[in-house]
Amino acid sequence: MTDPRLTPLAASLPDLVPFVGPETLERRMDRAFTARIGANESVFGPAPGAIAAMQEAARDAWMYGDPEAHELRHAIAAHHGVDPGHVRVGEGIDGLLGLLVRLTIGPGDWVVTSKGGYPTFDFHVTGFGGRIEQVPYEADRVDAKGLMERAAWSGAKLVYLANPDNPMGGMHDATTIQEMIETLPDGALLVLDEAYVEFAPEAELPRIDPADDRVIRFRTFSKAHGLAGARVGYAIGPKPLIAAFDRVRNHFGLTRMAQAGALAALADRAHLSHVVTEVARARARIAAIAHDNGLAPLPSATNFVAIDCGADGAFAKRVVAALGDLGVFVRMPGVAPLNRCIRVTAGREADLDVFAQALPRALETARAAP
Amino acid sequence: MTDPRLTPLAASLPDLVPFVGPETLERRMDRAFTARIGANESVFGPAPGAIAAMQEAARDAWMYGDPEAHELRHAIAAHHGVDPGHVRVGEGIDGLLGLLVRLTIGPGDWVVTSKGGYPTFDFHVTGFGGRIEQVPYEADRVDAKGLMERAAWSGAKLVYLANPDNPMGGMHDATTIQEMIETLPDGALLVLDEAYVEFAPEAELPRIDPADDRVIRFRTFSKAHGLAGARVGYAIGPKPLIAAFDRVRNHFGLTRMAQAGALAALADRAHLSHVVTEVARARARIAAIAHDNGLAPLPSATNFVAIDCGADGAFAKRVVAALGDLGVFVRMPGVAPLNRCIRVTAGREADLDVFAQALPRALETARAAP
Repeated sequence: MTDPRLTPLAASLPDLVPFVGPETLERRMDRAFTARIGANESVFGPAPGAIAAMQEAARDAWMYGDPEAHELRHAIAAHHGVDPGHVRVGEGIDGLLGLLVRLTIGPGDWVVTSKGGYPTFDFHVTGFGGRIEQVPYEADRVDAKGLMERAAWSGAKLVYLANPDNPMGGMHDATTIQEMIETLPDGALLVLDEAYVEFAPEAELPRIDPADDRVIRFRTFSKAHGLAGARVGYAIGPKPLIAAFDRVRNHFGLTRMAQAGALAALADRAHLSHVVTEVARARARIAAIAHDNGLAPLPSATNFVAIDCGADGAFAKRVVAALGDLGVFVRMPGVAPLNRCIRVTAGREADLDVFAQALPRALETARAAP
Repeated sequence: MTDPRLTPLAASLPDLVPFVGPETLERRMDRAFTARIGANESVFGPAPGAIAAMQEAARDAWMYGDPEAHELRHAIAAHHGVDPGHVRVGEGIDGLLGLLVRLTIGPGDWVVTSKGGYPTFDFHVTGFGGRIEQVPYEADRVDAKGLMERAAWSGAKLVYLANPDNPMGGMHDATTIQEMIETLPDGALLVLDEAYVEFAPEAELPRIDPADDRVIRFRTFSKAHGLAGARVGYAIGPKPLIAAFDRVRNHFGLTRMAQAGALAALADRAHLSHVVTEVARARARIAAIAHDNGLAPLPSATNFVAIDCGADGAFAKRVVAALGDLGVFVRMPGVAPLNRCIRVTAGREADLDVFAQALPRALETARAAP
């Protein structure tokens, strides 16, 4: 039953949600996961100074957070060497993507994305009545050229690209991204989701002029900075577009603890290096575990590794379920042919010990299924 | 300059924001306020257990918060004696109001509210292209009958009412609210913002069936629970409408710290009683300070007192500015005739000492102005 007061658009929306949280799965199983390596969270935690800053801010939680997130916004701008007018902070990339879609997409407007790419972008586009053109991956990588061709063909207003990519883990180098920008159709905007960028080789990252009105970039404190539970992301882009976020955002939405934690996290470059090193080590071990089990790990520039389970989506789904039964939380891509893979987040040694023990048993279970 | 890719609606929106934060004012003045009693925050702070819970949760900030806020939602439902299907938790009432407006209001749809009422509701309605009918206050109270008449006349989908009221502080009793519900035109929804309800006399509060499909209520942890900086609010209403929030909300938007803090705050009834007592004491003192200065305090069922400064909006604006210069942050209603008042939040003894000292000087300054 839907409420008769919903708008026609709201009434038409599906009840599906982009992701089921691990807590929901734990409630269904009635026990906790032993290894939580499925949501690309940073098991290595936030910087100690970020925890301390949030704990200190908790005492002041009676005050609203600064609606302009002035200190954090200016620190981010300084970090990137850009004018603060190019930066807006918000409730994670998810929240900011929703605002961008709201600002630019009305009923019938087209966007282009990759088939099997980040579902939350699609969730927002559908939520505002937009139409989605999905370009299949090419050899497990986003088809950069295909995205641009489809954008020209459809007259898309937004072209979404996660680089490095989620859920497959690969990336395109600076030259390819620059070519995408140069071939972007007039009137379109490249939405560059750089959630995992800190894990990628610095030399391969594009240098993008923040004033370039063809591109908006998104970054987050949820991944390398280990603050997924604080929900802080930011957008960098041309000033008129960035300023428009103020017209629609939840001005007091960023918590006081989140602002303090992100500010401290940004300042601790040593912790970030430590995390990046640990993640690289974990990726190598996940790849080795995959090989040990006769599976093929995909190259990754992120904090996770997609592992090709060598069969179809139904098989991979059984592997994910069997791993879950053994206390290991992992996820998998949603559509073929990507869904022959499972996606394993970089864990601590102990997490990966659990995974290494569970994987052969999970594969056995999956293979034994009718 | 606006970005050419904005939707016509987004391009038409004003750059105005509902509220300027006290931090922004402090940056302009280049010094901090001595008494922060302008945003109806709870200077008495959150429960010690809520602070401790947030500090503990900060250690786990690498994990996303539960997207279903399961524990908190169930605790709220139990607290109100309702089925959890009637409850959704979100990023403050502001965030939830935005989602409700998105779900129900499209371009050209009407809403009815009070002239000079909560500007963030109007911000959301304008943001989704809705049209706003504003009913003037009647003797400094919301015109309950007038709202219903105008709703019938305009075919409004939403009728907004803050009870107790912000910014004037008064309230309508249970009988009046029930009459509003009974006379609500078919197809309309009463949006009952109960942000300040914990400060109101229990006996005067309406008993509303959560399944009544004519009403949605909003409550918050930002006021009596002292967690404005954590941004947690919730909606109680008919299940089909409540379920629809899942179609459009930022599922991982509620932080881990916020969920933990709100859960602990809800459990500490003793702290809540303490705050309510302190607020009543502070209201009485604010009223006394007003009388001492020849001004008329308005009756309040909230954590603030509107003080009639006895002249026009320009005069009250000068009083607010002069108080600011003296280190006292207060706000005032935005439109005539309400804007003859200033709005002072319940403060600690020390805050109100500062206010008591500053007010006569601020009035002098305001009266001396050309």
